[in-house]
Amino acid sequence: MEDWIVGKKYDFGVTVLSEQDIIDFAKQFDPLEFHINKEAAKKHFFRGLVASGPHIFNLVHRTRWIPVFGQTVICGKEVSSWKFIRPIYAGQKVFSSATITDVQFNKERNYVEVTWLYEFLNEKGEPFQTLTVVVVHKP
Amino acid sequence: MEDWIVGKKYDFGVTVLSEQDIIDFAKQFDPLEFHINKEAAKKHFFRGLVASGPHIFNLVHRTRWIPVFGQTVICGKEVSSWKFIRPIYAGQKVFSSATITDVQFNKERNYVEVTWLYEFLNEKGEPFQTLTVVVVHKP
Repeated sequence: MEDWIVGKKYDFGVTVLSEQDIIDFAKQFDPLEFHINKEAAKKHFFRGLVASGPHIFNLVHRTRWIPVFGQTVICGKEVSSWKFIRPIYAGQKVFSSATITDVQFNKERNYVEVTWLYEFLNEKGEPFQTLTVVVVHKP
Repeated sequence: MEDWIVGKKYDFGVTVLSEQDIIDFAKQFDPLEFHINKEAAKKHFFRGLVASGPHIFNLVHRTRWIPVFGQTVICGKEVSSWKFIRPIYAGQKVFSSATITDVQFNKERNYVEVTWLYEFLNEKGEPFQTLTVVVVHKP
C-alpha cells in the first residue's frame, strides 16, 4: 500500500539507449527517418540519430514504475504536459525520476487522483523531457 | 508541400481494435492487468478489456499521419494536453481526425510550429480521447 505523499520522489536511475534500441522502438512506433536511419539522421536537424519522443518515458514507466505501482492503477486520466526539451542521442545517460506533485483523495468513491511529474535529465541536471501525468489509483 | 492552414481537418477514418490488438500493444508498452488479461479485466473498474491509453493515437499517428506529414517533421515539441475521457473497448468504432489549430511561421529560422488537435470519437460523436501536440515542421 502506497502512502501517496506530495513531494515524494522515486528515483529510477540511469538509462542509456543504444542506436539499436532507438531504431527498434521507432520502427514500431514512430518511423521517422531521423529515428530509424543513421545516415539520414546525420543530414537532419539533430545531425545524428535521436530517440523517438515517447521512447524514454515508455521504457522507464514500463520497467520501473509499473512493477511498483501497476497493481494500484484504476485508470490514466490525463497527460497534462509533456515537453520535449532536448533530443536524446544514443549513448547519452538519462537520469529518470517521478515525483508526486498532487494527491486528491475521493473517500466516497474510494479512489485517489495522483499527479506524477516525470523528469528525464542529462548529466548536468538539464531536462531532456518533463511529463506530468494524472493517474487514478486505488487508495 | 503542405499549406498549414488553421482549421484544416484531416479525417483518418474508423479504427476498430480487437482484443488481440489491445493485448499485443499493452504487453509491449503498458502491461497492466486490465489491458492484457481478459479475466482480470472483467473484475477491474472497466469490467472488460480496454485499450492502453496511448494505443489509438500511436496506431493512427503511425499509419495515417506519418505517411502524409512525416517527411516534413523537424521535431516534436510538446504534448500539451492528452485527455483520456472514455475507455476504448475491443470492437468499438473509433473515429479519428487531426485538426490544425495554430500555425506559427518562423521565416528567419525557416520552420513552422504547427499545433495539432487529435480527436478520437465514438459513434455518438463523444470523445474517447483528445490530444494536442505541437510539432515543428519544415515550411
